[in-house]
Amino acid sequence: MSREPRTAPRTAIATVCLSGALEDKLPAAAAAGFDGVEIFEPDLVASPMPPGEVRLRCADLGLSIDLYQPFRDLDSVDPERFAATLRRAEHKFGVMEALGTDTVLVCSSVAPDAVADVDLLAEQLHALAERAAARGLRIAYEALAWGRHVNTYDRSWAAVCRADHPALGLCLDSFHILSRGSDPAAIADIPGEKLFFLQLADAPHLSMDVLQWSRHHRLFPGQGAFDLPAFLEPVLRAGYAGPLSLEVFNDVFRQADPARAAVDAHRSLLALAEATAARGEGSDLITDPVAEPAPELRGHAFVELSADESLAPVLAALGFARTGLHRTKPVERWEQGGARILVNRSGGPAAVAALAVESADPLAAARRAARLSAPRLPRERGPAEADLAAVTAPDGTAVFFCRTGAETDWTGDFVPTEETAEKDGTGIGVTGIDHVGLAQPFDHFDEAALFYRTVLGLEPAATGEFAAPFGLVRSRAVADARRRVRLALTVSLLRRGEWAPGVSEPQYVALAVDDVLAAARAARAAGAPLLAIPDNYYADLDARLALSRERLAAYRDLGVLHEETAEGAYLQVCTEVLGGRVFLTLVQRVGDHDGYGWTDAPVRMAAHRRRRLARERVRA
Amino acid sequence: MSREPRTAPRTAIATVCLSGALEDKLPAAAAAGFDGVEIFEPDLVASPMPPGEVRLRCADLGLSIDLYQPFRDLDSVDPERFAATLRRAEHKFGVMEALGTDTVLVCSSVAPDAVADVDLLAEQLHALAERAAARGLRIAYEALAWGRHVNTYDRSWAAVCRADHPALGLCLDSFHILSRGSDPAAIADIPGEKLFFLQLADAPHLSMDVLQWSRHHRLFPGQGAFDLPAFLEPVLRAGYAGPLSLEVFNDVFRQADPARAAVDAHRSLLALAEATAARGEGSDLITDPVAEPAPELRGHAFVELSADESLAPVLAALGFARTGLHRTKPVERWEQGGARILVNRSGGPAAVAALAVESADPLAAARRAARLSAPRLPRERGPAEADLAAVTAPDGTAVFFCRTGAETDWTGDFVPTEETAEKDGTGIGVTGIDHVGLAQPFDHFDEAALFYRTVLGLEPAATGEFAAPFGLVRSRAVADARRRVRLALTVSLLRRGEWAPGVSEPQYVALAVDDVLAAARAARAAGAPLLAIPDNYYADLDARLALSRERLAAYRDLGVLHEETAEGAYLQVCTEVLGGRVFLTLVQRVGDHDGYGWTDAPVRMAAHRRRRLARERVRA
Repeated sequence: MSREPRTAPRTAIATVCLSGALEDKLPAAAAAGFDGVEIFEPDLVASPMPPGEVRLRCADLGLSIDLYQPFRDLDSVDPERFAATLRRAEHKFGVMEALGTDTVLVCSSVAPDAVADVDLLAEQLHALAERAAARGLRIAYEALAWGRHVNTYDRSWAAVCRADHPALGLCLDSFHILSRGSDPAAIADIPGEKLFFLQLADAPHLSMDVLQWSRHHRLFPGQGAFDLPAFLEPVLRAGYAGPLSLEVFNDVFRQADPARAAVDAHRSLLALAEATAARGEGSDLITDPVAEPAPELRGHAFVELSADESLAPVLAALGFARTGLHRTKPVERWEQGGARILVNRSGGPAAVAALAVESADPLAAARRAARLSAPRLPRERGPAEADLAAVTAPDGTAVFFCRTGAETDWTGDFVPTEETAEKDGTGIGVTGIDHVGLAQPFDHFDEAALFYRTVLGLEPAATGEFAAPFGLVRSRAVADARRRVRLALTVSLLRRGEWAPGVSEPQYVALAVDDVLAAARAARAAGAPLLAIPDNYYADLDARLALSRERLAAYRDLGVLHEETAEGAYLQVCTEVLGGRVFLTLVQRVGDHDGYGWTDAPVRMAAHRRRRLARERVRA
Repeated sequence: MSREPRTAPRTAIATVCLSGALEDKLPAAAAAGFDGVEIFEPDLVASPMPPGEVRLRCADLGLSIDLYQPFRDLDSVDPERFAATLRRAEHKFGVMEALGTDTVLVCSSVAPDAVADVDLLAEQLHALAERAAARGLRIAYEALAWGRHVNTYDRSWAAVCRADHPALGLCLDSFHILSRGSDPAAIADIPGEKLFFLQLADAPHLSMDVLQWSRHHRLFPGQGAFDLPAFLEPVLRAGYAGPLSLEVFNDVFRQADPARAAVDAHRSLLALAEATAARGEGSDLITDPVAEPAPELRGHAFVELSADESLAPVLAALGFARTGLHRTKPVERWEQGGARILVNRSGGPAAVAALAVESADPLAAARRAARLSAPRLPRERGPAEADLAAVTAPDGTAVFFCRTGAETDWTGDFVPTEETAEKDGTGIGVTGIDHVGLAQPFDHFDEAALFYRTVLGLEPAATGEFAAPFGLVRSRAVADARRRVRLALTVSLLRRGEWAPGVSEPQYVALAVDDVLAAARAARAAGAPLLAIPDNYYADLDARLALSRERLAAYRDLGVLHEETAEGAYLQVCTEVLGGRVFLTLVQRVGDHDGYGWTDAPVRMAAHRRRRLARERVRA
């Protein structure tokens, strides 16, 4: 088990992870930075490129072909069938020679005729390995979690040991091992040279048939619930020297832009290597390819909203003061307490254009983002403007790394006005930005969770689900450990169709207040368009929580939504949707409530929808 | 257990089955023909209509409110919590009085504090029933399949017996009972007057957590795999006199047009009542509301394709003769063997415009279709034209019921030409229409299976799945028992998005031949644009099946796709996509193969996609 000190690990991806045909997948993998690919047999069979041409195409793209897969149902108690399988294998060996790859994946059999007797199984594996060796090839044998007899890595390893052939080794797949709850620690005891291949996949915890779980719900590492660093460490400790290769079957990725999915996939491997290196004893096993950890986040610096002229009076009614005007652009700075909102009147419907986070080291954060393939935001900058490091999030929102008060302070781009929220007493008690709510595009929800996790260092919470008027909605929050930066991500469970044409859920900025009743009263008095909540909601709240009559009356009056858990309460008052697809909400957290008001989201969404329909009726 | 002879059963639907808000759901349910609704609490809570207004709205629409639901987690080992629950109940009783409904659903508790002791549980149920009775209301207690202690109907029945209160009875839900594999037969022994409510849902067989199965995958009766007639029969035998009510949680229905979904739902209940009445001993329990069984189908009468001028030479090359011209419309009749294709040049891209089936009794078939709310096709008809009974299928395809050769023969609408396929020897051996392949719109796949099952009397096969270039595809065939009418339905597992913009899968007409090699050779010689299949496919076929060198060469030459199962083989040669979204395929069935070539569909789809992209490149 001698190991050389490593540089960055080689990365590979199975073509089955990506949508389209080989002609789409190979360039996508190469452009994302992968070193190699596993060629999935159905992709090759459907391709007009003969194997030799695939080899050339990959070579042109700088991709190695690390594996040909899968070869199913090798072993058989029926000698005739096994003979036919060997014949099939010889054909596939020819394909592999033409592809220029030396390793074929052989999955444990799921067929009724699968061999239970380990001696016969070893004999058949040995026969196949002998034929492979004669052509300079090798067999990577993998235990499927639903294999008929071989369904754990110790069984596949026992069969490989018994077969005892130099051209026969193991393929380990994190899904098959972790989905069954097997402990990966003992992998460290397998000789590294017998670990021929490593396939990596994450997944959410689901209580369902493991085959269906595997076929539909795998995720890239860091997007699910498996502890992949704890899996990778014993594999590396054993001396595995091959690529980190992704094999992810996922319904959404299968139909999403392969170029985008490949970048997401490659990012997941960089982050996995980083996380593995960061595990105390893992640091001698693998070099951290990202090199710089995510600098500490200290809060939301600002949120930039694109808006027309209708937003300013709402911000004013919510107690914000226009404290600055951009030197060169039609951008205003509004402030109250620790909350800063930039209003960009360059055009376009009201929406969240940019998030800015306070970073302990904005330049290091930008370098890290670049290393993780976050697309750098193309910006036009005037001569006197701060050079803010910025990238584009998966939903198109710009993300700025700031250090307000430092030399390259963004606030210098603004000419101060006479107004300040504090001095003229117009504030309503907003203390800062609690979080930003971003409805995600359908294809990029899991990508977004990984993006924020890796690029910003935020931790994703578990995925939730609620029933909205137009169908189920999936929710997932990402936040730093100290809860100074929070984002609430949502996506519809199914892509919207004809019944909700053109309706995308609004984004929002949640403003932190200490007393939502006082804040909402002041805002309403100043003319803020608060969202009306139906009486039925308060009748139900009364039935459930037995609040005081006064409190309930105030809630009803102001449209307060009240979510209560054992940890505390989440009180919010929303504005109507302002112009395009954005609204503001005042949020008071009581106790240790760590949520985002999703229990009440269906009521809020129904109320917003009613207002929209009413406006459309007025216009028509 | 005395029973009155019945008329048609009353029907109801839970508002949770439908998308939108109450304002959308109630009119949809009424328009579809439901007699009543179950008001799902979150729908009411999110509604601006106070309960009294909901009552009036329902009355205006002719809907009764049959149930208020759900009331969760009633019982508790914590006396304080139980007291709070009774308080909550009194509030909900007030809501029910305002709604004008007398029955509330109480689900068995799933909470950690749920009562295990049946005496205490009975005591708490009794206390609730006592309060309900005081207000003229009643409690329908239901065992959730994942209830903490009460999770089968015999346990809920035991608790109801023990509580022994006239205002307390059972609610039975087919999903909760059949998902656990419970035998419903013993329901017949429960006194009918204690069966307060009945909820019906179907589901596919899935091996997953029953809660998730229930929340996402329920279907309307007849769309899934449960034997609902065998469930309904003992319920009726017990003397249940309430409505047949649907409670279906389904991801797709939740986001589909509620008006369409309600029609689908109502149709499912009519068909369920019919199927239950048709069970030997069931006929005294329930009147068949449909009254006329589906007349026997005897084959495909014709398929009508909308097309431009490019289709005619392809049909000619495939051996069809233009045997007739429509008297008044730009429609041609093409024939070969038993296959008839109408070509409608009225405009629009090439597509399947209509299916026509040979019916033993077209008028009875049309009456049945109308009874099952199939939308009648609006048609313009010339004075001398046959009055063909026609309806519109869920995907918009027209469906005609014909009896070719009878008095109202559709063939009389056509002026014969000189051409006949047989006489001039141009045929290539097409004997008839094997089936029609119809890619379904995303929201209407399950609706389509039920439509064809009920309206045409075709039997749906199990749902399958395959991986296509743009994502997973679900497949389901519907066919008559004698396989004279077959339809192959497919739908993408997720609605297509940005990565496959505007790409809808093509439809096709499969033409039956006895010798696909001879037919394809003749077609190609005549200039038919046969779809080229990659060499890699044949290399794999050779590896798998060891076909003779000659056969393989012929396959490769002609682009034959060969699917083999234990039952036989399915050989097909496809044309390119013709103009719009339709292609033709020559199909030879060998042995007892009963499939549709779905194993090879990914290869075919990739080849069609390549041709499309190549054409687009030429155009650009």
